[in-house]
Amino acid sequence: MQIVESPSEMQSYALGFRSGGRSIALVPTMGFLHAAHLSLLRLARERADIVVVSVFVNPTQFGPGEDFDNYPRAFERDAEVCRKAGADILFHPSADTMYANDHSVVVEETSLSRTLCGLSRPEHFAGVTTVVAKLFNIVQPHVAVFGAKDAQQARVIQRMTRDLNFPIEIIVAPTVREEDGLAMSSRNALLTPPQRAEASRIRQALLSAKALIDQGERDPEIIRRHVLGHLNESPELEIDYVDIVDGERLRPVERIDALTLIAVAVRIGDTRLIDNIMPACDAFPDSSRQSST
Amino acid sequence: MQIVESPSEMQSYALGFRSGGRSIALVPTMGFLHAAHLSLLRLARERADIVVVSVFVNPTQFGPGEDFDNYPRAFERDAEVCRKAGADILFHPSADTMYANDHSVVVEETSLSRTLCGLSRPEHFAGVTTVVAKLFNIVQPHVAVFGAKDAQQARVIQRMTRDLNFPIEIIVAPTVREEDGLAMSSRNALLTPPQRAEASRIRQALLSAKALIDQGERDPEIIRRHVLGHLNESPELEIDYVDIVDGERLRPVERIDALTLIAVAVRIGDTRLIDNIMPACDAFPDSSRQSST
Repeated sequence: MQIVESPSEMQSYALGFRSGGRSIALVPTMGFLHAAHLSLLRLARERADIVVVSVFVNPTQFGPGEDFDNYPRAFERDAEVCRKAGADILFHPSADTMYANDHSVVVEETSLSRTLCGLSRPEHFAGVTTVVAKLFNIVQPHVAVFGAKDAQQARVIQRMTRDLNFPIEIIVAPTVREEDGLAMSSRNALLTPPQRAEASRIRQALLSAKALIDQGERDPEIIRRHVLGHLNESPELEIDYVDIVDGERLRPVERIDALTLIAVAVRIGDTRLIDNIMPACDAFPDSSRQSST
Repeated sequence: MQIVESPSEMQSYALGFRSGGRSIALVPTMGFLHAAHLSLLRLARERADIVVVSVFVNPTQFGPGEDFDNYPRAFERDAEVCRKAGADILFHPSADTMYANDHSVVVEETSLSRTLCGLSRPEHFAGVTTVVAKLFNIVQPHVAVFGAKDAQQARVIQRMTRDLNFPIEIIVAPTVREEDGLAMSSRNALLTPPQRAEASRIRQALLSAKALIDQGERDPEIIRRHVLGHLNESPELEIDYVDIVDGERLRPVERIDALTLIAVAVRIGDTRLIDNIMPACDAFPDSSRQSST
């Protein structure tokens, strides 16, 4: 495995792979890799000749006061993990090679990004779409793999890929969970042990909502109050949102169906965690390509 | 020459050319082709195996009340012109294949696009950068050719290409002029004969400014007033701006030097015309890659 730091060097390699007829899969990450990243990497490995993992804690997707400085980093360990998992290239650029001092171009999604996390993180998705557009052009992938935990991010990236005509297939990989159900996230490392214990409530609340829906409940307001009630039992959890939306357009639904997404964001101390479930998806396995369960 | 209307078909061809080792040059146009477009096409022909000319009157770069409906169109003639000039593919998509009903992604340049034409056409450059990013992804060019008449557009495209890491060389081709000096533009066809006669004042004003600079004048305010005075002699010309700026950053300069750009926009009746000159560029031939003379 090769570690590449320069965007232009990475791009030269990528164009070389392409003109040599080799397919490229990209796994974009912010590092501090865990088992969920490995599942993305395995999917990438199945789909392309060359697997590129990018590790870049992108400053432009963090708002003022967010956890850019505290975001966990462990590059040496990440490199070891990627090597063992069979990545071909670990792309690890610095912020100043990614963004010129007078950088002035933004890629912005203006619909799907306005709901859910977009309300409390108004600049976040423009940072994401801009850096992913850059990574797409640098790494020239045929396939790029994102995780279903970041459901809104996946939808926004799919929309960007479609609307800007990137010739790239976006794969959304199922969420990988800890034993108690907590969705794996690099940010979990920021939790204290008591916070970590409370965090498992997020998944419990979503599974409990799914149980109600399995019993026939279809009213989103009843389900929403049920999830809120479950989360509010813990004084440690500060709820950012619990929203029940159309899984494609991310707009509130009036009745729960196969494509409905329940999305949750909470704060525990200084750490913000998100998770989601498509509770009725299992009942209609062909109606959606993404399952978060 | 092949005429391709479908973006996905165009992209398939382009990826095929690339994987077959063939280089691609793109000449993006809004059609109603004239001699200046042919000069872009000749440059493209010299630089790549496959020349793609796009003809697309992009609705998103016209503001409300601008001349989208009146913009001159002559596709059959354009096709004939491209065929004779040796284009390989004429890409002619419809607006609804380029923009989905729920299109929601914008590429925006937020610095260079804010001055000059950006002040009176606030949405124009976001429309340009978005459609050019799409064309870049659809046509997959190694080289793209733009005209120097649209000096600000060229700078904005160069910035977008750099900031989003497109692996594309941007070539800015010298402005081609009518016998009386008027910069060629599809919009010239919209002028009445008396308006057409008055339009030549734009070039005369710029050449007259250059003569003053050749004589040693370096004060931008004196030059600006000189150009304004020249243009104001005609009651037909309504001045949008006369600006004397740094040719790279497009910000006002305090003293004229080799990289200074004088940019002009006027209205004649309903038609808006632009032109520019780098008046001291000739004296420093190695200091800029772009000459508008």
